Amino acid sequence: MQSPHRSWLVLAHAYLRVAELQTLLDLYGTVDDIVCQPRSPLLASGLSAEKCDAIGSPDQKAINAALDWLEHDQHHLVAWGDDAYPEMFTQIPGPPLALYVNGHVEALHLPALAIIGSRNPTQGGLRNAHDFAKHLAGQGFAIVSGLAQGIDAAAHQGALDAGGQTVAFLGTGIDRVYPAVNRQLAHTITERGALVSEYPLGAPPERWHFPERNRLISGLGLGTLVVEAARRSGSLITARLAAEQGREVFALPGSIHNALARGCHKLIRQGAKLVETADDILSELRPLAGHMLEIADESVVKESMSPEPDDDYTELRKVLSHDPTSIDDLEKQSGLTIEQLSSMLLILELHGEVESLSGGRYALTG
Amino acid sequence: MQSPHRSWLVLAHAYLRVAELQTLLDLYGTVDDIVCQPRSPLLASGLSAEKCDAIGSPDQKAINAALDWLEHDQHHLVAWGDDAYPEMFTQIPGPPLALYVNGHVEALHLPALAIIGSRNPTQGGLRNAHDFAKHLAGQGFAIVSGLAQGIDAAAHQGALDAGGQTVAFLGTGIDRVYPAVNRQLAHTITERGALVSEYPLGAPPERWHFPERNRLISGLGLGTLVVEAARRSGSLITARLAAEQGREVFALPGSIHNALARGCHKLIRQGAKLVETADDILSELRPLAGHMLEIADESVVKESMSPEPDDDYTELRKVLSHDPTSIDDLEKQSGLTIEQLSSMLLILELHGEVESLSGGRYALTG
Repeated sequence: MQSPHRSWLVLAHAYLRVAELQTLLDLYGTVDDIVCQPRSPLLASGLSAEKCDAIGSPDQKAINAALDWLEHDQHHLVAWGDDAYPEMFTQIPGPPLALYVNGHVEALHLPALAIIGSRNPTQGGLRNAHDFAKHLAGQGFAIVSGLAQGIDAAAHQGALDAGGQTVAFLGTGIDRVYPAVNRQLAHTITERGALVSEYPLGAPPERWHFPERNRLISGLGLGTLVVEAARRSGSLITARLAAEQGREVFALPGSIHNALARGCHKLIRQGAKLVETADDILSELRPLAGHMLEIADESVVKESMSPEPDDDYTELRKVLSHDPTSIDDLEKQSGLTIEQLSSMLLILELHGEVESLSGGRYALTG
Repeated sequence: MQSPHRSWLVLAHAYLRVAELQTLLDLYGTVDDIVCQPRSPLLASGLSAEKCDAIGSPDQKAINAALDWLEHDQHHLVAWGDDAYPEMFTQIPGPPLALYVNGHVEALHLPALAIIGSRNPTQGGLRNAHDFAKHLAGQGFAIVSGLAQGIDAAAHQGALDAGGQTVAFLGTGIDRVYPAVNRQLAHTITERGALVSEYPLGAPPERWHFPERNRLISGLGLGTLVVEAARRSGSLITARLAAEQGREVFALPGSIHNALARGCHKLIRQGAKLVETADDILSELRPLAGHMLEIADESVVKESMSPEPDDDYTELRKVLSHDPTSIDDLEKQSGLTIEQLSSMLLILELHGEVESLSGGRYALTG
């Protein structure tokens, strides 16, 4: 028997758009019927030659690899029209045809807030991202971000620290994690939320993937919070996408001497809501969340979790000192992997125990 | 010969409003004619019994004292309809009938920016007030404030440090300075700008004077900048007055963890312009300033000034140390007055040399 996924994978590998899919469905009835069509009627329906070729002669090896990947309990393909397809994406321009999901598909159906910002934030920005995420995740909101270093990672971690759910949209294939430094965080997210990508397995981190991916980050959220961002930055593009998608845009103000407050101030001048507390966001989003929050009440794990075995932290604390130490040296001395270390150091940084210094070095604070 | 000021002083001591003045002028022709009227026609014209009494039986001793005060070259009475009466006040509701001015009347005719905020600002707020004032005063704007401690004092000082002009509106009679700690600053302002009050000589700092006085601070400015203010504070009332007077309202954002940024954020949410640099203000005000700036170009002293004799600073630096020292001890050890010390310590604080500590103590920084 043919997998129900095979035809969707053929169309996804052809980078078919939802608008094109709908034209073809009107003509041929089902996805299975579309992929069985000869080339000429597909061409006649307006599809590009490239896409016709990709449908007519699919990369069977890649598709079989994806089918193998889908054998895993935690791995899912969520396609346009499925019950599991996020309702929020049915409302945006350019919705994804299909999503590769590693983790819990239900996380895509919670009321969500996107939290985004600089990859090189200040200590204060990092802490704000973490604390806002933690507070809102504790109230039943999924925290959406892009798994980048800095604000993204702190936001995901904040949600996890609340025992809440978090969704990371990748600019690579679902089986790759970029940046590698967040591999441990990515793994934890698959257990407490979802990693999601619309790119084929193995797709590299192409530059053009990231702005495209950003529409999914803003699109899944009822609103997008920008924590710290330079005056010209990807975060501001995502915020603009959010506004164009009819989503709320929130921005944290900051000192006029903090260059990373500039992007937020620019957004506020353009009409973004100035936010001082997580409750400012809650009071805007609760009325929009409606029935989604009832679902959330049932599914959110309320108790806080300890995301890492304590023994690892004991090992790490043994090798940390007030002298700056490179992550490579910490790896050698602690026996922990770089991925584990990165995630643990971020958590300790957020708790104020550890300071991140230039050149990937870390030191105990105080 | 009777002083041309006497009749105005009689009306000012009766707290006559400009609207009432205009009714009486329509009936009787001139100010001198009004004060010669018997009680009954004044009463019939709708004036309160109290005001009729005050006009009919003026406090001659107080009026003579005011006339004596006006003998000084730097002392002026500027009344409604005078050429020296600020045009900006002809546009606001409840304009002052007459102003007592100590200093340069021309300062009231420069394009102006009001800078206001907390009496207990952060070090950063103090510095921002000073630096914005300095920059804008250097561009020909008079800096208007209320001579209070904190943001007010820093704003006045910033204007003086630029060799620019500054105007302080008092909530007391012009011959009193409140708070006393700013006496030296007040004296410098009379030489490089103007102290202004609408209250009779000797009037104490009544609580109700200050909100009333605030309409003059906002009213003289083309705009009002709030630097730091609590969520409920007099600065926010002044900002509201500015908006009601059709003036621009500017606010500096700050960290969400700075309680004194809350007032500014509230204003921004209500529509105040978020400001990051002095140029943000200049670009809004320059088109409004129009011909006023041409006058300013001629009158502003461009070169920076040293506002205090250097010898005094040498004395003060000798007695300052890294150990916190009370201002009383500094007074004893330096031979300088409390007033001199307060002003000098503020300047050193703004330059980062000195730190202000609890209990009126000061220490060298670093």
